[in-house]
Amino acid sequence: MGAVKTKRMPRAVREQQMLDAAVRIFGQRGYMAASMDDIAELAGVSKPLVYLYLNSKEDLFSAVIRREAAALAAAVRAAVHPERPADRRLWDGLLAFFTHTARHPDAWAVLHLHARTHGEPFAAEVAAMRSEIVAFVAQLVAATARDEGAPCSGEAGSADTRRVRLAEQEAAAGLAEALVGAAESLAAWANTTDRVTARQTAATLMNVAWAGLGDLMAGRSWSPPAE
Amino acid sequence: MGAVKTKRMPRAVREQQMLDAAVRIFGQRGYMAASMDDIAELAGVSKPLVYLYLNSKEDLFSAVIRREAAALAAAVRAAVHPERPADRRLWDGLLAFFTHTARHPDAWAVLHLHARTHGEPFAAEVAAMRSEIVAFVAQLVAATARDEGAPCSGEAGSADTRRVRLAEQEAAAGLAEALVGAAESLAAWANTTDRVTARQTAATLMNVAWAGLGDLMAGRSWSPPAE
Repeated sequence: MGAVKTKRMPRAVREQQMLDAAVRIFGQRGYMAASMDDIAELAGVSKPLVYLYLNSKEDLFSAVIRREAAALAAAVRAAVHPERPADRRLWDGLLAFFTHTARHPDAWAVLHLHARTHGEPFAAEVAAMRSEIVAFVAQLVAATARDEGAPCSGEAGSADTRRVRLAEQEAAAGLAEALVGAAESLAAWANTTDRVTARQTAATLMNVAWAGLGDLMAGRSWSPPAE
Repeated sequence: MGAVKTKRMPRAVREQQMLDAAVRIFGQRGYMAASMDDIAELAGVSKPLVYLYLNSKEDLFSAVIRREAAALAAAVRAAVHPERPADRRLWDGLLAFFTHTARHPDAWAVLHLHARTHGEPFAAEVAAMRSEIVAFVAQLVAATARDEGAPCSGEAGSADTRRVRLAEQEAAAGLAEALVGAAESLAAWANTTDRVTARQTAATLMNVAWAGLGDLMAGRSWSPPAE
Protein backbone atom coordinates (compact mmCIF):
# COMPACT_ATOMS: atom_id res chain seq x y z
CA MET A 1 0.00 0.00 0.00
CA GLY A 2 1.00 3.66 -0.38
CA ALA A 3 1.62 6.28 2.28
CA VAL A 4 -0.48 5.87 5.40
CA LYS A 5 -1.96 8.87 7.14
CA THR A 6 -0.94 8.64 10.76
CA LYS A 7 -3.34 10.62 12.90
CA ARG A 8 -2.20 11.89 16.27
CA MET A 9 -3.06 9.21 18.77
CA PRO A 10 -1.58 8.19 22.14
CA ARG A 11 1.21 5.65 21.83
CA ALA A 12 -0.57 3.14 24.06
CA VAL A 13 -3.63 3.14 21.79
CA ARG A 14 -1.53 2.74 18.64
CA GLU A 15 0.39 -0.11 20.21
CA GLN A 16 -2.81 -1.96 20.99
CA GLN A 17 -3.94 -1.50 17.38
CA MET A 18 -0.66 -2.93 16.18
CA LEU A 19 -1.01 -5.88 18.54
CA ASP A 20 -4.62 -6.45 17.40
CA ALA A 21 -3.42 -6.59 13.80
CA ALA A 22 -0.49 -8.81 14.75
CA VAL A 23 -2.74 -11.32 16.52
CA ARG A 24 -4.86 -11.64 13.39
CA ILE A 25 -1.96 -11.98 10.95
CA PHE A 26 0.15 -14.29 13.16
CA GLY A 27 -2.90 -16.35 14.12
CA GLN A 28 -4.06 -16.90 10.56
CA ARG A 29 -0.71 -17.32 8.82
CA GLY A 30 1.73 -18.48 11.47
CA TYR A 31 4.94 -16.78 12.50
CA MET A 32 7.07 -17.41 9.43
CA ALA A 33 4.51 -16.43 6.81
CA ALA A 34 3.35 -13.30 8.65
CA SER A 35 4.84 -10.11 7.22
CA MET A 36 5.42 -6.85 9.03
CA ASP A 37 4.04 -5.07 5.95
CA ASP A 38 0.70 -6.82 6.31
CA ILE A 39 0.58 -6.15 10.03
CA ALA A 40 1.32 -2.44 9.53
CA GLU A 41 -1.27 -2.21 6.77
CA LEU A 42 -3.96 -3.92 8.84
CA ALA A 43 -3.13 -1.67 11.79
CA GLY A 44 -3.31 1.38 9.52
CA VAL A 45 0.18 2.60 10.37
CA SER A 46 3.53 2.73 8.61
CA LYS A 47 5.95 -0.16 8.95
CA PRO A 48 8.70 2.05 10.47
CA LEU A 49 6.24 3.01 13.22
CA VAL A 50 5.67 -0.67 14.04
CA TYR A 51 9.44 -1.16 14.32
CA LEU A 52 9.79 2.05 16.34
CA TYR A 53 7.17 0.93 18.85
CA LEU A 54 7.72 -2.82 18.98
CA ASN A 55 11.30 -3.18 17.80
CA SER A 56 11.26 -6.37 15.71
CA LYS A 57 9.05 -9.17 14.46
CA GLU A 58 10.34 -11.36 17.30
CA ASP A 59 9.48 -8.74 19.93
CA LEU A 60 6.08 -8.13 18.37
CA PHE A 61 5.33 -11.86 18.48
CA SER A 62 6.46 -12.01 22.12
CA ALA A 63 4.27 -9.03 22.97
CA VAL A 64 1.30 -10.77 21.32
CA ILE A 65 1.94 -13.96 23.29
CA ARG A 66 2.18 -12.08 26.60
CA ARG A 67 -0.91 -9.97 25.99
CA GLU A 68 -3.09 -12.87 24.80
CA ALA A 69 -1.90 -15.26 27.50
CA ALA A 70 -2.67 -12.66 30.16
CA ALA A 71 -6.12 -11.99 28.67
CA LEU A 72 -7.01 -15.68 28.63
CA ALA A 73 -5.80 -16.25 32.19
CA ALA A 74 -7.67 -13.15 33.39
CA ALA A 75 -10.91 -14.29 31.73
CA VAL A 76 -10.74 -17.66 33.49
CA ARG A 77 -9.76 -16.21 36.88
CA ALA A 78 -12.53 -13.59 36.74
CA ALA A 79 -15.14 -16.29 36.16
CA VAL A 80 -14.19 -18.49 39.10
CA HIS A 81 -15.73 -17.35 42.38
CA PRO A 82 -14.26 -19.12 45.43
CA GLU A 83 -17.53 -19.00 47.36
CA ARG A 84 -19.40 -21.07 44.79
CA PRO A 85 -19.69 -24.87 45.00
CA ALA A 86 -16.91 -26.93 43.44
CA ASP A 87 -18.81 -28.12 40.37
CA ARG A 88 -19.97 -24.59 39.67
CA ARG A 89 -16.40 -23.25 39.94
CA LEU A 90 -15.17 -25.84 37.47
CA TRP A 91 -18.05 -25.14 35.10
CA ASP A 92 -17.56 -21.38 35.31
CA GLY A 93 -13.85 -21.72 34.62
CA LEU A 94 -14.33 -24.08 31.68
CA LEU A 95 -17.11 -22.00 30.15
CA ALA A 96 -14.98 -18.85 30.45
CA PHE A 97 -12.04 -20.66 28.85
CA PHE A 98 -13.97 -22.02 25.87
CA THR A 99 -15.89 -18.76 25.42
CA HIS A 100 -12.64 -16.83 25.30
CA THR A 101 -10.91 -19.24 22.90
CA ALA A 102 -14.00 -19.30 20.64
CA ARG A 103 -14.21 -15.49 20.56
CA HIS A 104 -10.50 -15.07 19.97
CA PRO A 105 -9.61 -17.94 17.63
CA ASP A 106 -6.57 -16.13 16.23
CA ALA A 107 -5.20 -15.51 19.71
CA TRP A 108 -5.75 -19.16 20.58
CA ALA A 109 -3.99 -20.27 17.39
CA VAL A 110 -1.01 -18.09 18.36
CA LEU A 111 -0.83 -19.50 21.90
CA HIS A 112 -1.66 -23.13 21.26
CA LEU A 113 -0.05 -23.62 17.88
CA HIS A 114 2.28 -20.95 16.53
CA ALA A 115 4.02 -19.90 19.75
CA ARG A 116 5.05 -23.49 20.36
CA THR A 117 6.22 -24.08 16.82
CA HIS A 118 9.03 -21.55 16.60
CA GLY A 119 11.41 -22.51 19.34
CA GLU A 120 12.68 -20.36 22.18
CA PRO A 121 11.99 -17.86 23.57
CA PHE A 122 8.36 -18.09 22.44
CA ALA A 123 7.83 -21.66 23.59
CA ALA A 124 9.23 -20.72 27.01
CA GLU A 125 6.78 -17.84 27.36
CA VAL A 126 3.82 -20.04 26.55
CA ALA A 127 5.15 -22.75 28.86
CA ALA A 128 5.37 -20.21 31.70
CA MET A 129 1.80 -19.09 31.10
CA ARG A 130 0.62 -22.68 30.93
CA SER A 131 2.37 -23.53 34.21
CA GLU A 132 0.50 -20.68 35.88
CA ILE A 133 -2.82 -21.97 34.63
CA VAL A 134 -1.99 -25.54 35.71
CA ALA A 135 -1.02 -24.23 39.16
CA PHE A 136 -4.28 -22.28 39.38
CA VAL A 137 -6.30 -25.37 38.43
CA ALA A 138 -4.29 -27.54 40.85
CA GLN A 139 -5.09 -25.08 43.65
CA LEU A 140 -8.78 -25.27 42.75
CA VAL A 141 -8.70 -29.06 42.75
CA ALA A 142 -6.84 -29.20 46.06
CA ALA A 143 -9.14 -26.63 47.67
CA THR A 144 -12.18 -28.51 46.45
CA ALA A 145 -10.81 -31.75 47.84
CA ARG A 146 -10.16 -30.11 51.23
CA ASP A 147 -13.70 -28.69 51.28
CA GLU A 148 -15.57 -31.70 50.04
CA GLY A 149 -13.39 -34.78 50.13
CA ALA A 150 -12.26 -34.51 53.72
CA PRO A 151 -13.76 -37.15 56.00
CA CYS A 152 -16.78 -35.92 57.98
CA SER A 153 -15.77 -34.14 61.17
CA GLY A 154 -15.18 -36.55 64.03
CA GLU A 155 -14.51 -39.33 61.56
CA ALA A 156 -10.90 -40.40 61.31
CA GLY A 157 -11.00 -41.65 57.73
CA SER A 158 -9.51 -44.97 56.72
CA ALA A 159 -6.03 -45.30 55.29
CA ASP A 160 -7.68 -45.91 51.93
CA THR A 161 -9.69 -42.73 52.15
CA ARG A 162 -6.59 -40.79 53.04
CA ARG A 163 -4.74 -42.39 50.18
CA VAL A 164 -7.19 -41.00 47.66
CA ARG A 165 -7.39 -37.54 49.25
CA LEU A 166 -6.82 -35.05 46.51
CA ALA A 167 -5.23 -32.49 48.76
CA GLU A 168 -2.06 -34.44 48.19
CA GLN A 169 -0.12 -32.07 46.02
CA GLU A 170 1.11 -34.47 43.39
CA ALA A 171 -2.32 -35.90 42.72
CA ALA A 172 -3.75 -32.40 42.33
CA ALA A 173 -0.92 -31.50 39.95
CA GLY A 174 -1.58 -34.58 37.82
CA LEU A 175 -5.32 -33.95 37.70
CA ALA A 176 -4.70 -30.32 36.77
CA GLU A 177 -2.37 -31.39 33.94
CA ALA A 178 -5.05 -33.75 32.66
CA LEU A 179 -7.76 -31.09 32.78
CA VAL A 180 -5.64 -28.40 31.13
CA GLY A 181 -4.51 -30.81 28.41
CA ALA A 182 -8.09 -31.87 27.76
CA ALA A 183 -9.23 -28.23 27.61
CA GLU A 184 -6.46 -27.23 25.18
CA SER A 185 -7.21 -30.14 22.91
CA LEU A 186 -10.95 -29.45 22.96
CA ALA A 187 -10.51 -25.72 22.29
CA ALA A 188 -8.49 -26.46 19.15
CA TRP A 189 -11.11 -29.01 18.11
CA ALA A 190 -14.06 -26.70 18.79
CA ASN A 191 -12.47 -23.87 16.78
CA THR A 192 -12.10 -26.10 13.75
CA THR A 193 -15.44 -27.90 14.01
CA ASP A 194 -18.67 -26.35 12.75
CA ARG A 195 -21.65 -25.81 14.99
CA VAL A 196 -19.94 -26.54 18.31
CA THR A 197 -20.61 -23.81 20.86
CA ALA A 198 -18.41 -22.90 23.82
CA ARG A 199 -21.20 -24.09 26.09
CA GLN A 200 -21.34 -27.49 24.43
CA THR A 201 -17.58 -27.84 24.57
CA ALA A 202 -17.52 -26.92 28.25
CA ALA A 203 -20.34 -29.40 28.91
CA THR A 204 -18.41 -32.17 27.12
CA LEU A 205 -15.38 -31.72 29.36
CA MET A 206 -17.47 -31.12 32.44
CA ASN A 207 -19.35 -34.35 31.83
CA VAL A 208 -16.16 -36.33 31.80
CA ALA A 209 -14.23 -34.40 34.40
CA TRP A 210 -16.82 -33.48 36.95
CA ALA A 211 -18.43 -36.82 37.46
CA GLY A 212 -14.94 -38.26 37.77
CA LEU A 213 -13.67 -35.62 40.16
CA GLY A 214 -16.97 -35.70 42.02
CA ASP A 215 -16.56 -39.41 42.68
CA LEU A 216 -12.93 -38.90 43.68
CA MET A 217 -13.88 -36.21 46.16
CA ALA A 218 -16.46 -38.48 47.68
CA GLY A 219 -13.62 -40.96 48.20
CA ARG A 220 -14.67 -43.27 45.37
CA SER A 221 -11.66 -43.85 43.21
CA TRP A 222 -11.37 -46.25 40.31
CA SER A 223 -9.22 -49.28 41.13
CA PRO A 224 -6.88 -50.64 38.49
CA PRO A 225 -6.79 -54.41 37.93
CA ALA A 226 -3.95 -56.23 39.69
CA GLU A 227 -0.59 -56.02 37.95
CA MET B 1 35.61 -38.43 15.47
CA GLY B 2 37.94 -40.24 13.06
CA ALA B 3 37.19 -42.89 10.50
CA VAL B 4 34.39 -45.26 11.43
CA LYS B 5 34.66 -48.94 10.67
CA THR B 6 31.55 -49.91 8.84
CA LYS B 7 30.96 -53.61 9.20
CA ARG B 8 28.89 -55.43 6.61
CA MET B 9 25.34 -55.29 7.81
CA PRO B 10 21.97 -55.34 6.02
CA ARG B 11 20.75 -51.91 5.05
CA ALA B 12 17.52 -52.32 7.00
CA VAL B 13 19.45 -52.99 10.21
CA ARG B 14 21.76 -50.01 9.67
CA GLU B 15 18.81 -47.75 8.98
CA GLN B 16 17.17 -48.75 12.25
CA GLN B 17 20.44 -47.97 14.08
CA MET B 18 20.53 -44.55 12.47
CA LEU B 19 16.92 -43.93 13.40
CA ASP B 20 17.60 -45.06 17.00
CA ALA B 21 20.44 -42.56 17.24
CA ALA B 22 18.35 -39.85 15.59
CA VAL B 23 15.49 -40.33 18.07
CA ARG B 24 17.92 -39.80 20.93
CA ILE B 25 19.68 -36.76 19.49
CA PHE B 26 16.51 -35.07 18.18
CA GLY B 27 14.61 -35.89 21.36
CA GLN B 28 17.22 -34.50 23.69
CA ARG B 29 18.36 -31.45 21.71
CA GLY B 30 15.48 -30.56 19.43
CA TYR B 31 15.54 -30.34 15.66
CA MET B 32 17.66 -27.23 15.16
CA ALA B 33 20.43 -28.12 17.61
CA ALA B 34 20.72 -31.74 16.50
CA SER B 35 23.68 -32.34 14.19
CA MET B 36 24.06 -35.05 11.59
CA ASP B 37 27.63 -35.54 12.83
CA ASP B 38 26.39 -36.47 16.29
CA ILE B 39 23.72 -38.77 14.90
CA ALA B 40 26.23 -40.56 12.69
CA GLU B 41 28.68 -40.90 15.57
CA LEU B 42 26.06 -42.27 17.94
CA ALA B 43 24.91 -44.72 15.27
CA GLY B 44 28.52 -45.77 14.66
CA VAL B 45 28.45 -45.01 10.95
CA SER B 46 29.89 -42.33 8.69
CA LYS B 47 27.92 -39.19 7.96
CA PRO B 48 27.88 -39.83 4.19
CA LEU B 49 26.22 -43.17 4.89
CA VAL B 50 23.46 -41.42 6.85
CA TYR B 51 22.88 -39.07 3.90
CA LEU B 52 23.04 -41.98 1.46
CA TYR B 53 20.38 -43.91 3.36
CA LEU B 54 18.15 -41.14 4.66
CA ASN B 55 18.84 -38.32 2.26
CA SER B 56 18.72 -35.21 4.47
CA LYS B 57 18.20 -34.01 8.03
CA GLU B 58 14.60 -33.17 7.14
CA ASP B 59 13.95 -36.65 5.75
CA LEU B 60 15.64 -38.26 8.74
CA PHE B 61 13.44 -36.26 11.10
CA SER B 62 10.34 -37.25 9.11
CA ALA B 63 11.39 -40.90 9.20
CA VAL B 64 11.80 -40.65 13.00
CA ILE B 65 8.35 -39.11 13.38
CA ARG B 66 6.72 -41.77 11.24
CA ARG B 67 8.48 -44.68 12.95
CA GLU B 68 7.83 -43.44 16.48
CA ALA B 69 4.23 -42.45 15.81
CA ALA B 70 3.55 -45.88 14.36
CA ALA B 71 5.23 -47.61 17.34
CA LEU B 72 3.16 -45.63 19.85
CA ALA B 73 -0.10 -46.25 18.00
CA ALA B 74 0.72 -49.96 17.68
CA ALA B 75 1.48 -50.26 21.41
CA VAL B 76 -1.89 -48.77 22.32
CA ARG B 77 -3.85 -50.80 19.76
CA ALA B 78 -2.20 -54.05 20.82
CA ALA B 79 -3.22 -53.49 24.43
CA VAL B 80 -6.90 -52.88 23.77
CA HIS B 81 -8.90 -56.10 23.47
CA PRO B 82 -12.42 -55.54 22.14
CA GLU B 83 -13.88 -58.42 24.15
CA ARG B 84 -12.95 -56.88 27.51
CA PRO B 85 -15.28 -54.60 29.48
CA ALA B 86 -15.23 -50.89 28.67
CA ASP B 87 -13.35 -49.73 31.75
CA ARG B 88 -10.74 -52.40 31.24
CA ARG B 89 -10.28 -51.39 27.61
CA LEU B 90 -9.77 -47.78 28.61
CA TRP B 91 -7.35 -48.75 31.38
CA ASP B 92 -5.38 -51.07 29.11
CA GLY B 93 -5.08 -48.39 26.45
CA LEU B 94 -4.01 -45.69 28.90
CA LEU B 95 -1.52 -47.95 30.66
CA ALA B 96 0.01 -48.95 27.33
CA PHE B 97 0.22 -45.31 26.28
CA PHE B 98 1.92 -44.08 29.46
CA THR B 99 4.19 -47.12 29.61
CA HIS B 100 5.34 -46.49 26.06
CA THR B 101 5.90 -42.75 26.56
CA ALA B 102 7.78 -43.41 29.82
CA ARG B 103 10.02 -46.03 28.20
CA HIS B 104 10.67 -43.89 25.15
CA PRO B 105 10.93 -40.35 26.52
CA ASP B 106 13.06 -39.15 23.60
CA ALA B 107 10.54 -40.45 21.10
CA TRP B 108 7.74 -38.74 23.01
CA ALA B 109 9.69 -35.48 23.11
CA VAL B 110 10.09 -35.69 19.32
CA LEU B 111 6.38 -36.34 18.73
CA HIS B 112 4.84 -34.08 21.33
CA LEU B 113 7.31 -31.23 21.32
CA HIS B 114 9.90 -31.02 18.57
CA ALA B 115 7.84 -32.25 15.63
CA ARG B 116 5.27 -29.56 16.30
CA THR B 117 7.83 -26.82 16.75
CA HIS B 118 9.38 -26.79 13.30
CA GLY B 119 6.52 -26.08 10.98
CA GLU B 120 5.43 -28.14 7.99
CA PRO B 121 5.71 -30.86 6.92
CA PHE B 122 6.57 -32.26 10.37
CA ALA B 123 3.59 -30.73 12.14
CA ALA B 124 1.30 -32.17 9.47
CA GLU B 125 2.71 -35.68 9.98
CA VAL B 126 2.17 -35.51 13.71
CA ALA B 127 -1.29 -34.06 13.20
CA ALA B 128 -2.18 -36.97 10.91
CA MET B 129 -0.97 -39.48 13.49
CA ARG B 130 -2.87 -37.69 16.23
CA SER B 131 -6.08 -37.69 14.14
CA GLU B 132 -5.78 -41.45 13.78
CA ILE B 133 -5.43 -41.91 17.53
CA VAL B 134 -8.38 -39.58 18.20
CA ALA B 135 -10.47 -41.54 15.69
CA PHE B 136 -9.47 -44.82 17.36
CA VAL B 137 -10.44 -43.47 20.80
CA ALA B 138 -13.69 -42.02 19.41
CA GLN B 139 -14.55 -45.47 18.03
CA LEU B 140 -13.86 -47.02 21.42
CA VAL B 141 -16.03 -44.45 23.17
CA ALA B 142 -18.86 -44.87 20.67
CA ALA B 143 -18.65 -48.67 20.82
CA THR B 144 -18.68 -48.58 24.60
CA ALA B 145 -21.69 -46.30 24.57
CA ARG B 146 -23.51 -48.65 22.23
CA ASP B 147 -22.68 -51.66 24.40
CA GLU B 148 -23.34 -50.15 27.79
CA GLY B 149 -25.25 -46.90 27.43
CA ALA B 150 -28.02 -48.21 25.26
CA PRO B 151 -31.35 -48.55 27.04
CA CYS B 152 -32.10 -52.11 28.20
CA SER B 153 -33.71 -54.19 25.49
CA GLY B 154 -37.44 -53.67 25.28
CA GLU B 155 -37.10 -50.29 26.96
CA ALA B 156 -37.61 -47.32 24.68
CA GLY B 157 -35.42 -44.84 26.54
CA SER B 158 -36.53 -41.30 27.32
CA ALA B 159 -35.71 -38.37 25.08
CA ASP B 160 -33.22 -37.27 27.73
CA THR B 161 -31.50 -40.63 27.69
CA ARG B 162 -31.29 -40.54 23.95
CA ARG B 163 -29.93 -37.01 24.06
CA VAL B 164 -26.93 -38.09 26.12
CA ARG B 165 -26.25 -41.24 24.08
CA LEU B 166 -22.58 -41.20 23.28
CA ALA B 167 -23.00 -43.08 20.04
CA GLU B 168 -23.70 -39.68 18.53
CA GLN B 169 -20.58 -39.08 16.51
CA GLU B 170 -19.85 -35.51 17.47
CA ALA B 171 -20.05 -36.22 21.21
CA ALA B 172 -17.70 -39.18 20.84
CA ALA B 173 -15.28 -37.02 18.83
CA GLY B 174 -15.30 -34.34 21.53
CA LEU B 175 -14.77 -36.84 24.33
CA ALA B 176 -11.93 -38.45 22.38
CA GLU B 177 -10.27 -35.06 21.89
CA ALA B 178 -10.53 -34.41 25.62
CA LEU B 179 -9.05 -37.80 26.51
CA VAL B 180 -6.20 -37.57 24.02
CA GLY B 181 -5.37 -34.02 25.10
CA ALA B 182 -5.38 -35.06 28.75
CA ALA B 183 -3.15 -38.05 28.00
CA GLU B 184 -0.65 -35.96 26.01
CA SER B 185 -0.44 -33.39 28.75
CA LEU B 186 -0.01 -36.02 31.45
CA ALA B 187 2.67 -37.91 29.53
CA ALA B 188 4.78 -34.76 29.22
CA TRP B 189 4.23 -34.07 32.93
CA ALA B 190 5.05 -37.62 34.02
CA ASN B 191 8.27 -37.64 31.99
CA THR B 192 9.49 -34.48 33.73
CA THR B 193 8.29 -35.36 37.23
CA ASP B 194 10.26 -37.63 39.53
CA ARG B 195 8.81 -40.77 40.99
CA VAL B 196 5.64 -40.90 38.90
CA THR B 197 5.12 -44.32 37.33
CA ALA B 198 3.20 -45.08 34.17
CA ARG B 199 0.70 -46.97 36.30
CA GLN B 200 0.10 -43.99 38.57
CA THR B 201 -0.28 -41.67 35.60
CA ALA B 202 -2.77 -44.02 33.96
CA ALA B 203 -4.69 -44.29 37.24
CA THR B 204 -4.84 -40.49 37.55
CA LEU B 205 -6.46 -40.11 34.15
CA MET B 206 -8.62 -43.19 34.61
CA ASN B 207 -9.94 -41.82 37.87
CA VAL B 208 -11.08 -38.65 36.21
CA ALA B 209 -12.15 -40.07 32.89
CA TRP B 210 -13.70 -43.39 33.77
CA ALA B 211 -15.99 -42.34 36.54
CA GLY B 212 -17.12 -39.52 34.27
CA LEU B 213 -17.60 -41.70 31.21
CA GLY B 214 -19.10 -44.42 33.38
CA ASP B 215 -21.77 -42.03 34.61
CA LEU B 216 -22.38 -40.79 31.09
CA MET B 217 -22.85 -44.31 29.81
CA ALA B 218 -25.34 -45.00 32.53
CA GLY B 219 -27.27 -41.98 31.24
CA ARG B 220 -26.22 -39.70 34.09
CA SER B 221 -24.84 -36.54 32.57
CA TRP B 222 -23.85 -33.39 34.39
CA SER B 223 -26.29 -30.53 33.81
CA PRO B 224 -24.95 -27.01 33.40
CA PRO B 225 -26.65 -24.19 35.29
CA ALA B 226 -29.20 -22.20 33.26
CA GLU B 227 -27.72 -19.59 30.93
